[in-house]
Amino acid sequence: MEIQLDCLPCFLRQVLDAARMNTKDKELQKEILMKATEIIGNVDQYTTAPEVGRFMHQLVKKYTKIQDPYQELKKRCIETAEKIYPDMKYFLYKQKDRLYWTLKISAVGNIMDAAIYGDKSVKENFIEEFDKEFKICEIDKLRKSLKNGKLLLIIGDNAGETVFDRVLVEELLHLEIIYAVRSNPIINDATIKEAYASKLHHGAKIISTGCDAPGIILDECSEEFKKIYNKADIIISKGQGNYETLSDEGRKIFFLLKAKCPVIARDIGVKVNDYVLIQK
Amino acid sequence: MEIQLDCLPCFLRQVLDAARMNTKDKELQKEILMKATEIIGNVDQYTTAPEVGRFMHQLVKKYTKIQDPYQELKKRCIETAEKIYPDMKYFLYKQKDRLYWTLKISAVGNIMDAAIYGDKSVKENFIEEFDKEFKICEIDKLRKSLKNGKLLLIIGDNAGETVFDRVLVEELLHLEIIYAVRSNPIINDATIKEAYASKLHHGAKIISTGCDAPGIILDECSEEFKKIYNKADIIISKGQGNYETLSDEGRKIFFLLKAKCPVIARDIGVKVNDYVLIQK
Repeated sequence: MEIQLDCLPCFLRQVLDAARMNTKDKELQKEILMKATEIIGNVDQYTTAPEVGRFMHQLVKKYTKIQDPYQELKKRCIETAEKIYPDMKYFLYKQKDRLYWTLKISAVGNIMDAAIYGDKSVKENFIEEFDKEFKICEIDKLRKSLKNGKLLLIIGDNAGETVFDRVLVEELLHLEIIYAVRSNPIINDATIKEAYASKLHHGAKIISTGCDAPGIILDECSEEFKKIYNKADIIISKGQGNYETLSDEGRKIFFLLKAKCPVIARDIGVKVNDYVLIQK
Repeated sequence: MEIQLDCLPCFLRQVLDAARMNTKDKELQKEILMKATEIIGNVDQYTTAPEVGRFMHQLVKKYTKIQDPYQELKKRCIETAEKIYPDMKYFLYKQKDRLYWTLKISAVGNIMDAAIYGDKSVKENFIEEFDKEFKICEIDKLRKSLKNGKLLLIIGDNAGETVFDRVLVEELLHLEIIYAVRSNPIINDATIKEAYASKLHHGAKIISTGCDAPGIILDECSEEFKKIYNKADIIISKGQGNYETLSDEGRKIFFLLKAKCPVIARDIGVKVNDYVLIQK
């Protein structure tokens, strides 16, 4: 989907938060914000929001000289999620429709997003979220695909969310599962390091997409990833960034996410905070 | 007070809202937003946020060719406030410390701000707000000034808020009161037209500041205003915009407002949503 005008002020706010998280130097914060403004001024050069987001966050890396500005946060997110992991499994144990609630847990993992929740992600919040039903849930289509398919590609999103995705992986172990992550640190997205730290390798093969944008820009992905992308029987894409870059792509993909911003919610046809499993 | 980095994304969001309120033409909305981005890129040319805000909102006027983009909204705010006016008076009738609660009503009028409340400003909301105490209230200093002073200058803020200020004017009729408003339409701020529509002329002399920024830039104000500003025994300044341009000025001014954004709240030393009467 195309960048919307609403994204522009949001980019600036995000990059300011990121700058402040990584340097106390106010001049440097300002310099980053001014450079971000320049990028916004040339927004026509980009098609999707994650393409702009990447350049925004590269500024933070460049000016603060920190190669992984969200390293600590990602670690904390994974630790927090690990603490909730037994609750996820217990919650699931009580459910009849295990696939539905597994998908729901994986979708809830999507709120482990620094930009939205910060430090508020406590256990109780998550358990409440587990209980909410999907607004759109094309599970019948997914069941059909799962029945006939053998190779499942999951495209990951944030660190921490990865632990929630482990629950999904553990439910689908009869399939060959490949879990794809960003090639380099970008915002709080998972890279191979965080995928391993989340123990996803116990049930899935972990690969890099070859792309370091906070979404999948196919032209920039590795040949290995593109081969799997084209070969996979089922693709589950997690989160907003991947939706923004893949929702207009040719392949039919299951998008599993929480609509966290008005732009995405409007595009899907739901409200902000609604959970969605939709094939596009 | 100086512009803070937080203001920059907020400017963009505001100008986008304003553009959308006045044109359905998406290309025009984008053009306005791009020009606003250019202004932000040159933010060093400005000292206070209202200086930037003025140029932002002039873009909306220029590109939509609408001279008073908030005209309808201002009218609606005044009409809504007029409906609540009897409730203000009844609320006040029940109070022992009339000055304290009069100031409180006038401060609550500050939430009649398009950028914050939109259409949600219903009677019940306001009556709840009346009841909340000030977080900082330097009323003793004000009482002292009121005891000895003769000429009171009130610097107005938004249309609609003007009706709440009428309650303040009506409590202080023993003084000579001058109520100053913007010289030209800017955002939803009151001009002479809205001051008269709010019947402020029944108790106060209404004048224009000579300045069309959403705050008081003294260098740009008329000689008439500056004379009154220097001569007045007491000055009450309403709202954030006036605070941003006057809080570092030489004269001791009573600022009466609700801290509606983190930047102002931080500067005053209160939390967002706190009500304040403070002399600076």
